[in-house]
Amino acid sequence: MSATRMRFLSPRNLRLVHRAPRDFLGACSGRQPGGPSCSTSLTSPHSVSSHMCRALSSLTSSRRGLPKEKMSENGISRPKVLTLDTMNPTVKMVEYAVRGPIVQRAVELERELSEGIEKPFAEVIKANIGDAHAMGQQPITFFRQVLALCSYPELLNDNTFPEDAKNRARRILQSCGGSSLGAYSPSQGIDSVRQDVANYIERRDGGVPCDPENIYLTTGASDGIVTMLKLLVCGQGIDRTGVMISIPQYPLYSAALAELGAVQINYYLDEENCWSMDINELQRAVNEARQHCHPRALCIINPGNPTGQVQSRQCIEDVIRFAAKERLFLMADEVYQDNVYAEGCQFHSFKKVLFEMGPEYSETVELASFHSTSKCYMGECGFRGGYMEVINMDDDVKFQLTKLVSVRLCAPVPGQALMDLVVNPPQPGEPSYNSFIKERTATLSALAEKAKLTEQILNTVPGIRCNPVQGAMYSFPRITIPQKAIQEALEKGQQPDMFYCMKMLEETGICLVPGSGFGQREGTYHFRMTILPPIDKLKILLNKVKEFHQKFTQQYS
Amino acid sequence: MSATRMRFLSPRNLRLVHRAPRDFLGACSGRQPGGPSCSTSLTSPHSVSSHMCRALSSLTSSRRGLPKEKMSENGISRPKVLTLDTMNPTVKMVEYAVRGPIVQRAVELERELSEGIEKPFAEVIKANIGDAHAMGQQPITFFRQVLALCSYPELLNDNTFPEDAKNRARRILQSCGGSSLGAYSPSQGIDSVRQDVANYIERRDGGVPCDPENIYLTTGASDGIVTMLKLLVCGQGIDRTGVMISIPQYPLYSAALAELGAVQINYYLDEENCWSMDINELQRAVNEARQHCHPRALCIINPGNPTGQVQSRQCIEDVIRFAAKERLFLMADEVYQDNVYAEGCQFHSFKKVLFEMGPEYSETVELASFHSTSKCYMGECGFRGGYMEVINMDDDVKFQLTKLVSVRLCAPVPGQALMDLVVNPPQPGEPSYNSFIKERTATLSALAEKAKLTEQILNTVPGIRCNPVQGAMYSFPRITIPQKAIQEALEKGQQPDMFYCMKMLEETGICLVPGSGFGQREGTYHFRMTILPPIDKLKILLNKVKEFHQKFTQQYS
Repeated sequence: MSATRMRFLSPRNLRLVHRAPRDFLGACSGRQPGGPSCSTSLTSPHSVSSHMCRALSSLTSSRRGLPKEKMSENGISRPKVLTLDTMNPTVKMVEYAVRGPIVQRAVELERELSEGIEKPFAEVIKANIGDAHAMGQQPITFFRQVLALCSYPELLNDNTFPEDAKNRARRILQSCGGSSLGAYSPSQGIDSVRQDVANYIERRDGGVPCDPENIYLTTGASDGIVTMLKLLVCGQGIDRTGVMISIPQYPLYSAALAELGAVQINYYLDEENCWSMDINELQRAVNEARQHCHPRALCIINPGNPTGQVQSRQCIEDVIRFAAKERLFLMADEVYQDNVYAEGCQFHSFKKVLFEMGPEYSETVELASFHSTSKCYMGECGFRGGYMEVINMDDDVKFQLTKLVSVRLCAPVPGQALMDLVVNPPQPGEPSYNSFIKERTATLSALAEKAKLTEQILNTVPGIRCNPVQGAMYSFPRITIPQKAIQEALEKGQQPDMFYCMKMLEETGICLVPGSGFGQREGTYHFRMTILPPIDKLKILLNKVKEFHQKFTQQYS
Repeated sequence: MSATRMRFLSPRNLRLVHRAPRDFLGACSGRQPGGPSCSTSLTSPHSVSSHMCRALSSLTSSRRGLPKEKMSENGISRPKVLTLDTMNPTVKMVEYAVRGPIVQRAVELERELSEGIEKPFAEVIKANIGDAHAMGQQPITFFRQVLALCSYPELLNDNTFPEDAKNRARRILQSCGGSSLGAYSPSQGIDSVRQDVANYIERRDGGVPCDPENIYLTTGASDGIVTMLKLLVCGQGIDRTGVMISIPQYPLYSAALAELGAVQINYYLDEENCWSMDINELQRAVNEARQHCHPRALCIINPGNPTGQVQSRQCIEDVIRFAAKERLFLMADEVYQDNVYAEGCQFHSFKKVLFEMGPEYSETVELASFHSTSKCYMGECGFRGGYMEVINMDDDVKFQLTKLVSVRLCAPVPGQALMDLVVNPPQPGEPSYNSFIKERTATLSALAEKAKLTEQILNTVPGIRCNPVQGAMYSFPRITIPQKAIQEALEKGQQPDMFYCMKMLEETGICLVPGSGFGQREGTYHFRMTILPPIDKLKILLNKVKEFHQKFTQQYS
């Protein structure tokens, strides 16, 4: 193998290739063997994109014929079995901006700071990921008490723990094999937890019935989403499954679709209208997609990630009607259901609206809804707790779903226990009720305040325009990038907003994710920032962003 | 849709089809669109198998043309989007016997017993799954103390906890974002835990160096295994990736290969020689497989599941040499590394042997090794902790691997913490050391005693022949099934050993898994039973098996 080729294949160069925008990757996916025969890239190819497309093509074009060789010290050479040329091509198509190169650089910078290397900032502030505890949010005391009691049941004899925490721990342990969190649970999840989830959903949805047999406990919401997508993928060529996702989107969706070789169908949210969904746009997307694939599912994130909008009841009804008409399986990612801040906004579950629309819809439209312990007021990401409810799912398919999840045995049991506490928190009159309410309210109020602050400060910056953060944990402002900066980025083979964010990180220590990692309309640029840092730090962060943007604009004007 | 067809598609009938033996499923897999173009079923087709193959073919042959319809109460009909006909065909190919129909029936029987329905037994004994805590094994006190401290750090002020547990908890929390188990960890796992894993491996392997950058913390070992297989799958037709797995195997492997559309290459373990690996058999399997696929990986489970053998150092060396010669990526499933009971047997890690073979091998052979918190003396299955070490992996591929695991954000953090404790238990001189050693020794001694007892009692039964349980947690005895019983089973469309185990369950309440769920040589029959029940219950269980077998043999002779 020539030195030139080796250099080209090195991870450093690859990183550039893999940071290409989603649309580019969509456009390339048609070349996967056995993959979708064509893409649904709905924007015209960009000059950088097509350049990178050729680059990636040359990366994947060679096969067994040109293996990399390893020369050992004593001169024995043996080609590697697994190389970039011989690995799963769909995995290469996967990208996940939330933990992409910008975060890797942030980690490097942190290390350099700790080694005493001089930087223009004293600390790295990570606003790239919805990781509340990492940003200092405190866990709910009751939840952690019960988890400690479940982990080490000797503590049930400790009088400092409140009785309701002990009772809850006893109930969870009774449902575990051998009364231990260390036993496998049933594949679908602990029975009593699924019952509690069903009760929670019934309460939340004003009495709409919920069957615990439709509940699957999952390893975070991501696990449930990937599992559902996995069930939906089939067909080849024009019959290949297409899945509609919003642009901007949370990149779990594009990553999972790439890995599964499904066709990604982009529908654009309406930035001018507070990132709302527009049925005409959905219709355009599905009509165009039907030319080259078989659209079978529609994914919605409400409240929105990365865009922070909260959908109106009317909009949800329209979406359900659209899905019924177009025969689409609905996937409702509702992990931010408690994160609603804006006045006049309210969370409506897809299930509730579906049932209020009467049997024509409630008995026919297929829906999977996802929730998690990671967001809302809990922010317990590390426990990887979650659930999925499936509605109107065919019995045979449900049997297959249960079989599929059984292969991984069960979701983490501590995460299941935590999910149980989330759906069944302390009740009025119980010893922990007041402190629970106080803690929950404090967290949600702080988030609401930070949502407002973020919108306000960003909108004072010329060249940054920010929709209200109605819900979730993110702002996704649009940024004006001067032409000269765009040019410089393209010359470096970078997306302009990646170039912008990387520069901001190097100069200010602030870690954001470029909009290109989530998808955006051609020629527009954004970044996603979380509203999670403590209020004082958030103010500093926002002012640094302001300063940086002004300086950047000046520099490239 | 006709009533006949509806009946045929019902889950109950499907269950029969899906309980078909692996070889049958292998033989059918060639029909998956986009899947492997041919199978590696190395045995001649069985009459039941080909019958079922036709049945499944009729199940999967129709497409969009014949959707199932749902008629709502008010007469609106709408075909389902997702049906058995339109779902992912590779998912339908997946099966996982350890949680198959026999376990579902066991759960039903338990419920019937609890409802007071008369049965010929007082309780169901589940010996189907390696779930130690569910069978009454107690967790290690130190581990659970640290987990409780990490879950609820207020307990760090509690004087009843030993100092070493507190120190360990502090150290883990310091490595977590916001000092909380609720924060996401880095995608590859908590840095300090990966460092501790690397230290553990170095100690275990007599100083062979281990780089924490090669460690990935996983959601149980299953997650790591599936991720590695995912990387390896590529190509179509004769270039399709083939993966060698032992027969009998742990059905995670066949399930993952089916889902990924890879070709399963069976190599048979030598039952006459205590289930050892035989290089001639590996050679036969790979030679035959090269006719129709591209063999790229070799999976080994040591100590063996379901077969309980422990591989000799010589055997491992031979396997490594074979892998090098045939250019196979090695996957060593070593989750039972502490479960070695037989005299003269010892666990040798593949990595250690690889490095002892000198740079010709240690610098070239690609290896992934898997470990878990679920087995050994811990049995902490519910926490879904695990790690994977990759050796000689191409840098570009490692970059892709890290990217891939980042999509799911991180393995459950409590499981990561537990993995840390497993690889870094209390040391001599620390307050918890003595109790830790006492608890660990007690569990491992009891397992050794139960391994011996199982072998001894089963071998007293005419028609049951059992290899020594050298390690792991299972016995996989061969059973003689009378011709009349085989006939009756085939008439019911059941595998003969499924028929046998189902009858045993109904008559005795004992839940075992039929050998056909793991694969076995054509015409031989087995079951897998765990050695985990407490010794008194195990004796009862073994004697009931004995009685049942004698009665069954008599009935069908």
